[in-house]
Amino acid sequence: MDNALVLKQMQKFWNNDMPFNQLLGLHITKFSPDKSEVRFSWQEQLVGNPMQKILHGGVTATALDLVGGVVAAANIIAQLEDLSPNSIEQSLRKLSTIDLRTDFLLPGRGEEFIATAVIIRSGSKVAVARMELHNEKNDHIAFGTGTYMVG
Amino acid sequence: MDNALVLKQMQKFWNNDMPFNQLLGLHITKFSPDKSEVRFSWQEQLVGNPMQKILHGGVTATALDLVGGVVAAANIIAQLEDLSPNSIEQSLRKLSTIDLRTDFLLPGRGEEFIATAVIIRSGSKVAVARMELHNEKNDHIAFGTGTYMVG
Amino acid sequence: MDNALVLKQMQKFWNNDMPFNQLLGLHITKFSPDKSEVRFSWQEQLVGNPMQKILHGGVTATALDLVGGVVAAANIIAQLEDLSPNSIEQSLRKLSTIDLRTDFLLPGRGEEFIATAVIIRSGSKVAVARMELHNEKNDHIAFGTGTYMVG
Amino acid sequence: MDNALVLKQMQKFWNNDMPFNQLLGLHITKFSPDKSEVRFSWQEQLVGNPMQKILHGGVTATALDLVGGVVAAANIIAQLEDLSPNSIEQSLRKLSTIDLRTDFLLPGRGEEFIATAVIIRSGSKVAVARMELHNEKNDHIAFGTGTYMVG
Repeated sequence: MDNALVLKQMQKFWNNDMPFNQLLGLHITKFSPDKSEVRFSWQEQLVGNPMQKILHGGVTATALDLVGGVVAAANIIAQLEDLSPNSIEQSLRKLSTIDLRTDFLLPGRGEEFIATAVIIRSGSKVAVARMELHNEKNDHIAFGTGTYMVG
Repeated sequence: MDNALVLKQMQKFWNNDMPFNQLLGLHITKFSPDKSEVRFSWQEQLVGNPMQKILHGGVTATALDLVGGVVAAANIIAQLEDLSPNSIEQSLRKLSTIDLRTDFLLPGRGEEFIATAVIIRSGSKVAVARMELHNEKNDHIAFGTGTYMVG
Repeated sequence: MDNALVLKQMQKFWNNDMPFNQLLGLHITKFSPDKSEVRFSWQEQLVGNPMQKILHGGVTATALDLVGGVVAAANIIAQLEDLSPNSIEQSLRKLSTIDLRTDFLLPGRGEEFIATAVIIRSGSKVAVARMELHNEKNDHIAFGTGTYMVG
Repeated sequence: MDNALVLKQMQKFWNNDMPFNQLLGLHITKFSPDKSEVRFSWQEQLVGNPMQKILHGGVTATALDLVGGVVAAANIIAQLEDLSPNSIEQSLRKLSTIDLRTDFLLPGRGEEFIATAVIIRSGSKVAVARMELHNEKNDHIAFGTGTYMVG
């Protein structure tokens, strides 16, 4: 099984079998070590304050944490020599978020939201990712920085 | 209307009319300027990775952001002289999260989760809160720091 | 006095009369609301661990905090209508760092270091800046995010 | 050589041979896995803005980064079985700061400053420390959170 196929399968698994991602309607649309992407649509249930009709800050943090984890996972897989299911599972088992910072720039308004992530520090044990959240008009809603355990 | 009554009404409103808090089952159990508290129960839909049965990091971040916002709101109200509904609404309209840091200490396992917050910097424009998440066994799952616009 | 002249005078003042910046040899080389820049040279006294000959993390944090403060100050001045010395002093008196995050990406090695900053959230009360530190070979040594009180 | 003796020697080495710590007058006064401490005195050269006579934010960040690194180092040594100089050096070579957050609570005024640190997440690869800075009157000047590579 080659690398691209593994990423495709993981994308499918993470999109279909992660309960909280499904509850929020988060879809991974790019699962790649260079830049990963998660999208979701506006829904009433994602609202924080009903008077202002803006996304709850926790939704933003969730999308940023997810897309940072996706790009970190893609980098773990890119460095694996053994692409057997067992090896992949062993490696990803170690993936976890150590810390996450979210900077809220604009109120979370829009119809569709796009979260993207790139790796800025890549190591055998720890990776750091930078994330951004935009809406469909390309308004820049939030920045994120996540430190992930990867090995 | 006195201060305690205002906090009680706000607690009711935030518990019943905030869509995302309701989706996650987050309940504000203490709405106080000294220390605020939010509780929620384990639910399958809050799971990140189904193989590990632990809370999604976004759930933790959401609970910490909420409880920090609650303690910030209680402090705004404690400093208001005019407690009319209009004055309260005007004041709380300015409340928003500027940035949020979450430090994940232990996997999010448990039956009930308790998020608490205290104010560490109190100003007329910006407040900073420190938050903690524990489970029912008092395992310390996460730390948070939130910077909030309050005026 | 026009805006450009004010920024030039401030650059001179901050370069010549800020004791800690002088102790470390930090020079503001661009004092502009779009992108500000601070440079400094390698010196033995900036070393953290003498066995590894790398910058102390505190030097990196100091340079990032400074350049973020410079870009925030330039933005305060850009929004002033009254450019009298008194008005400028009143406005800058409110400038202070609320919080600062530094992500260390590579060991701090090099002969010259360049810290740059841009504003990512601009408000009448709070501004958020993103900073980067590179060496003369353009190695990316650190990222920073600073939240500043500006009004 | 026992553990306590190792910590004593390290304290001496870090106090006498770390150029940047000496430049700032930082002294490690407790080198312990439970709680570590760094102290320093007010000096004109540590001032940021001369009009306000307060510590540069970079001084605060430096002291917090140092004391967090000290408590992380003490924890590394506490877990070592082989306390030979070679083993200690090998272990500490891996110690580095991954990220550092500083929350500034009060202007840095005082005659003496005390930075303290405790470990909140302890792992074989990554440790997280919480730090505080107070002055001699016990005014709480800053909070810090540092994530350190330890293995």
